[in-house]
Amino acid sequence: MTGKVFLVGAGPGDPNLITLRAVELIKKADVVLYDRLVSKKILAMIPKKSAAIYVGRSVGDDYKHQDSTNDLMVKYAKTKRCVVRLKGGDPIMFGRGGEEAEYLKKHKIKFEIVPGITSGIGSATYAGIPLTHRKFASSVVFVTGHEDFEKSKEAVRWKKLAKSTDTIVVMMGLSRLGIICKQFTLNNYNREGG
Amino acid sequence: MTGKVFLVGAGPGDPNLITLRAVELIKKADVVLYDRLVSKKILAMIPKKSAAIYVGRSVGDDYKHQDSTNDLMVKYAKTKRCVVRLKGGDPIMFGRGGEEAEYLKKHKIKFEIVPGITSGIGSATYAGIPLTHRKFASSVVFVTGHEDFEKSKEAVRWKKLAKSTDTIVVMMGLSRLGIICKQFTLNNYNREGG
Repeated sequence: MTGKVFLVGAGPGDPNLITLRAVELIKKADVVLYDRLVSKKILAMIPKKSAAIYVGRSVGDDYKHQDSTNDLMVKYAKTKRCVVRLKGGDPIMFGRGGEEAEYLKKHKIKFEIVPGITSGIGSATYAGIPLTHRKFASSVVFVTGHEDFEKSKEAVRWKKLAKSTDTIVVMMGLSRLGIICKQFTLNNYNREGG
Repeated sequence: MTGKVFLVGAGPGDPNLITLRAVELIKKADVVLYDRLVSKKILAMIPKKSAAIYVGRSVGDDYKHQDSTNDLMVKYAKTKRCVVRLKGGDPIMFGRGGEEAEYLKKHKIKFEIVPGITSGIGSATYAGIPLTHRKFASSVVFVTGHEDFEKSKEAVRWKKLAKSTDTIVVMMGLSRLGIICKQFTLNNYNREGG
């Protein structure tokens, strides 16, 4: 028997911001592989008969860790009917849903992706900041603040970003807050400029 | 008695992609003011004893129409306990939630915004397109395709957008698909360029 893997977004934290589809899948899952940022009240929805396995990452164990999560998805899909890979926020917005889907496809495992409220939108909402506005903002960009600034010239183009988009949401940027702010101020952010 | 207005995102269409919080509010609403893109299965959740009022816009009646929707929110908030303003997608992502919240604040009406899955993420998910990817896309921009190209020099800066962001999601752009594509090809999209 080969089962199906559901890459499911659990939303930004508030357990009431999960979708009906996510709840339905969590309740019928044989196995749930869950991330660090999934709230306890959502984890409490997992039936007692099901396996709940923590696969959250810590800083520093990025690459190998993702490999082992991928292997677990395939392993359980080969013996269980319904495998839920439960993620904070949304799977395709900085959630590695694309990578995990690729891996499943390569291993001929059926999958489905279930969107969740991304924390980039949820947190702005709860902070009272509209991300677009007919008069003031025609675009909003979501960008990772976690990318290695030394990595390559292909890293985030902060200067161009500031000059092309109206609202900027930096995700996973807390540990680099200082350097990110510096990028914008150094570049003398000015929409009219060249 | 003054009630409260809930600006609620109904998600991208699939009725199972609505949040638990949205369902809770729809079920206890005295009045629901709903948009054109809210699915019938979601509207079916409105209790029979509640008033369900269509306030969807058609092309061409933009400005006055928004005024009358604003007036309705305030009118019902003054006589009813729970008023739900139900929107397609997410309220603060091209949903005018910011404007409506401003209006309510100005009229001293309590409000709360409840996020929904934006169609920009939901439709990409169902189309199998991850919006970010560790190897290929560190940013994603959501931009209106509906802005008047003649309006002002402050309109969407397509050329700069193409050079600064990795994934571009154009919302409400179908009727301008041709001219939007032209903006990108005319500008000879090239990430390395200046």
